[in-house]
Amino acid sequence: MAVRIDLNLSLDGIAMPAHQTPENPMGEHWGRLVAAYIATRTFRERVLHDTTGEGTTGVDDRYAAAYFDGVGAEIMGAGMFGLHAFPDDPDWRGWWGDEPPFRAPVLVLTHRERPPIDFANGTRFEFLAASPQAALARAQELAGGADVRIGGGASVARDFLAAGLVDRLHVAIAPIVLGRGTGLWDDLGELERDYAVTSEVAESGVIHVTFAR
Amino acid sequence: MAVRIDLNLSLDGIAMPAHQTPENPMGEHWGRLVAAYIATRTFRERVLHDTTGEGTTGVDDRYAAAYFDGVGAEIMGAGMFGLHAFPDDPDWRGWWGDEPPFRAPVLVLTHRERPPIDFANGTRFEFLAASPQAALARAQELAGGADVRIGGGASVARDFLAAGLVDRLHVAIAPIVLGRGTGLWDDLGELERDYAVTSEVAESGVIHVTFAR
Repeated sequence: MAVRIDLNLSLDGIAMPAHQTPENPMGEHWGRLVAAYIATRTFRERVLHDTTGEGTTGVDDRYAAAYFDGVGAEIMGAGMFGLHAFPDDPDWRGWWGDEPPFRAPVLVLTHRERPPIDFANGTRFEFLAASPQAALARAQELAGGADVRIGGGASVARDFLAAGLVDRLHVAIAPIVLGRGTGLWDDLGELERDYAVTSEVAESGVIHVTFAR
Repeated sequence: MAVRIDLNLSLDGIAMPAHQTPENPMGEHWGRLVAAYIATRTFRERVLHDTTGEGTTGVDDRYAAAYFDGVGAEIMGAGMFGLHAFPDDPDWRGWWGDEPPFRAPVLVLTHRERPPIDFANGTRFEFLAASPQAALARAQELAGGADVRIGGGASVARDFLAAGLVDRLHVAIAPIVLGRGTGLWDDLGELERDYAVTSEVAESGVIHVTFAR
């Protein structure tokens, strides 16, 4: 029943680049931040529904597979679901098409009331306004003993980390400097005091750092 | 004749922690930032003049040895030399005692005029007000064909990086979050475009990242 976070960061700690627009909702440099992740076989299979077996199978793929493994419910911010980019579209169903990769309940933190959305593959988006503690309690009910992931974005992840609610934080640091965007580490000084920290470098050059209780 | 920078950073990109005082000139968390470096055999020999042969001899020590190898002149900021902490002491000779580890000319960037200081081991501190380009030209004259190191602090390193004057940047990232202090990466967005970036993790958990032209 661990509470987990996985994020892609730049060397300067940015999880979401600046310059988000509806046309380019993740920011202009997002592709560079996640290049090694989206090149993995797991991402291609699980998110892009690519059944060719292509994609990398090294260290990055090991983390990508772990990302999807054992998660019974997820919590994400309104921005990650897309409500900031498409606030006036009542039919918005997220970025992920008809088969979102979650296959589990996803709690979207928002003050806008919206009806739940169910997908055939088990993904269910529920919308609620709640504190980190209250949202986590609800997610743990839904997870039925499996792990809960805090999906992001950066500010939501930071809220849960600052509240001491997270058992494992994995950051995949791309060897790039973004300069502007939403950082993860702000206000998390001395985070390492509550964790054992380990690191390894993938074939791609991405640095995987794990904080584990 | 490469121009090199070596810095210790936290995961959040801080090279110099906040809360500097005369009693604790490097900031209260500086020891945690450099713990793996000062544990190396090279640091103990070269900086502490410890001839017992103690200290670590792994990946961190390999970088520590390279730090001192082949440098013919160094450039550092007034803060790194200590002029900010001891501005009114005309006899201040730096933090390093009677045998500073540089053993070469060191240009200290400051608008205060001070006479040069010579040490028996070949270290010579010269004080000058100059642009990065002009300081580098002077250091390259003094280096006699060997490398020039930009010693720091973070803002001086950033100035030289932003001016495109640096051939190799090595950062030793300690797996800690400092939260507040002087960061390296500000205004260096897309720095990686001019370099090949490689990384490795030391036995200590420190992540060594090298930008090389």
